Amino acid sequence: MAAFSFAPSHFGAGPRTGILRTAHGEVRTPAFMPVGTQGTIKSLRPEAVRAAGTEMILANTYHLALRPGAATIARAGGVARFIGWPGPVLTDSGGYQAFSLSPSIDDDGVRFRSHLDGAPFRLTPEGAIAIQEDLGSDIAMVLDECPPDPLDRDRAASAVERTIRWARRSIAARARPDQAVFAIVQGGVHEDLRGACAEALREMPFEGLAIGGVSVGEEKEAIHAATSVAAPHLPADRPRYLMGVGEPDDILWAVRCGIDLFDCVIPTRCARNGRLYTFRGRMRIRNARFRKDDQPIEEGCDCMACARVSRAYLAHLHTRGETLGATLATHHNLRFFQRLMEGIRRAIDEDRFDTFARSFAEGFVEERESP
Amino acid sequence: MAAFSFAPSHFGAGPRTGILRTAHGEVRTPAFMPVGTQGTIKSLRPEAVRAAGTEMILANTYHLALRPGAATIARAGGVARFIGWPGPVLTDSGGYQAFSLSPSIDDDGVRFRSHLDGAPFRLTPEGAIAIQEDLGSDIAMVLDECPPDPLDRDRAASAVERTIRWARRSIAARARPDQAVFAIVQGGVHEDLRGACAEALREMPFEGLAIGGVSVGEEKEAIHAATSVAAPHLPADRPRYLMGVGEPDDILWAVRCGIDLFDCVIPTRCARNGRLYTFRGRMRIRNARFRKDDQPIEEGCDCMACARVSRAYLAHLHTRGETLGATLATHHNLRFFQRLMEGIRRAIDEDRFDTFARSFAEGFVEERESP
Repeated sequence: MAAFSFAPSHFGAGPRTGILRTAHGEVRTPAFMPVGTQGTIKSLRPEAVRAAGTEMILANTYHLALRPGAATIARAGGVARFIGWPGPVLTDSGGYQAFSLSPSIDDDGVRFRSHLDGAPFRLTPEGAIAIQEDLGSDIAMVLDECPPDPLDRDRAASAVERTIRWARRSIAARARPDQAVFAIVQGGVHEDLRGACAEALREMPFEGLAIGGVSVGEEKEAIHAATSVAAPHLPADRPRYLMGVGEPDDILWAVRCGIDLFDCVIPTRCARNGRLYTFRGRMRIRNARFRKDDQPIEEGCDCMACARVSRAYLAHLHTRGETLGATLATHHNLRFFQRLMEGIRRAIDEDRFDTFARSFAEGFVEERESP
Repeated sequence: MAAFSFAPSHFGAGPRTGILRTAHGEVRTPAFMPVGTQGTIKSLRPEAVRAAGTEMILANTYHLALRPGAATIARAGGVARFIGWPGPVLTDSGGYQAFSLSPSIDDDGVRFRSHLDGAPFRLTPEGAIAIQEDLGSDIAMVLDECPPDPLDRDRAASAVERTIRWARRSIAARARPDQAVFAIVQGGVHEDLRGACAEALREMPFEGLAIGGVSVGEEKEAIHAATSVAAPHLPADRPRYLMGVGEPDDILWAVRCGIDLFDCVIPTRCARNGRLYTFRGRMRIRNARFRKDDQPIEEGCDCMACARVSRAYLAHLHTRGETLGATLATHHNLRFFQRLMEGIRRAIDEDRFDTFARSFAEGFVEERESP
């Protein structure tokens, strides 16, 4: 496992910075990973993803396994090389998509049908490891059971048990020493279940642990509750990853709980819908009031859009349906999230995280109504 | 007119190189301009357009006048600044689109309805100059009459007369000394009409002359015939621009006739449809045989796609409908056209243009069937 290591700033509770080292480069934590669903951060070249301050991306195993297929990617030398990304990649297990496709679940694994053509698809803990070894990501995720409702205690308890059994099989299935594997803690919002799951998983030789099941459509309160109860049980010497989160306030909440890694489709998906993030709040660029607005999206932002063009031009591109509108908006939103992470890391290192988080919350409104 | 000058390598017949100087930078000729219909070379950032070797782009007056409107662009400081393009821009007059929208034509100008919402639109020679002065392009084009069939002698003759009258009014309407204006020679495939039109226009103080009416859907033979008969009548001390052309073989034909400037949607439109240019011919990247092809599109190409990713990845992006596929393909095709122009300029300077053109024609096939 020499290819992978993690050095956090401290082993206690609360916000921390760190450096995660992989064969494809270093990642400063707390880190935000954009999501490249089909082998691309939609509408952005890898150079632009990097220029936004991104150090690691997430790629979806399920989508890549369907098309172009794990064998094609293995032959190309792995997912990073295939897509031209000059840095580390984390892959999910495919389980998240599987559980959204009404699978039949038994102790062996899950069966479901491809959303593309209905072809039967079977995912087991061993299969998820094997596919991700073909994909050649730097960090692979185990297959876990992800129940739909974090409040349902019985489902959460059985998911914890199965997740632990599957994690053990994942460890046994590992064959690539150059790939790290993270296990996933389930247990909904129930502290005892989260605690029991984490205690069992930390005994196994995983390079990191993740909090799962907090981004399946539930309310903010449930996300925050699950994070708060799970985080203290994650081992301090390994990276802690909160899967599928989130909005800036969710990230700030989780950083306070000691989380090191995040991924979310929010910045990229919102960008394509013309919703732009600034430190004063979100803007809808298609709104008529921006059509004659010569200002950049956000004064002081160093993204490729703010450096060169106005809100009026972006409004023009978005209303005309030009893909360059999505490209520039995606770069801006991604740069916003990475500027947020840079601010968080600096604030932690300078021991003023609480002030930073409070100041952010005071300035940021959900939907900006004024320019 | 100090902002604009042109220095060709010679004033005789045949292929020539040159340098066209504008307030926004120099353009080496023969030059190819990609087309930015709605204020964007579709799917490419200006930096990528520039990195492909592009020195001047074409922007469509008609589309920009409808949305976002000439006033918005004037207030932003001109079209180059509005769209973030760091170089010269040539605008057409809007006439080409007007003549495709079944206009009513009289000696005053053309009336037609917007393709967006049916709103009435009126274009006169004076109006076309005024809008382009608002757009602030480096080179503006006069409004000309562009008849649908270059073989119809009577229509061509009356279009020549009206085009000359409109050109005179365009000169009288000019108010911006920092903007060059090119007139357009009509006359179909008829040498005497092309000659008469060019003789009349060269007496007026236009900074350049263009050959119009050769890209309205006609056959290659008509394009070549019109270029051959018109080019000798264009003044040698001013740039010669063949509007809307074309395929590589058309460009080579026209360069031999002494043409300096070209524009065409072919590289960008084909790219979005997955048709990629190489010096061995065009490829359809969606073809199944590329799905497992680890080679770059073209060995030796220095575009952002060939430098980093394989045909298999591009095939994946195009079949999945990912916009990054259009972005990478557009950059590749544009780079191909600019590499062609670089090859042409070098060959002319080294007095081996005929060898270059013959060698290109022998290597290039319309549709490549083998990798």
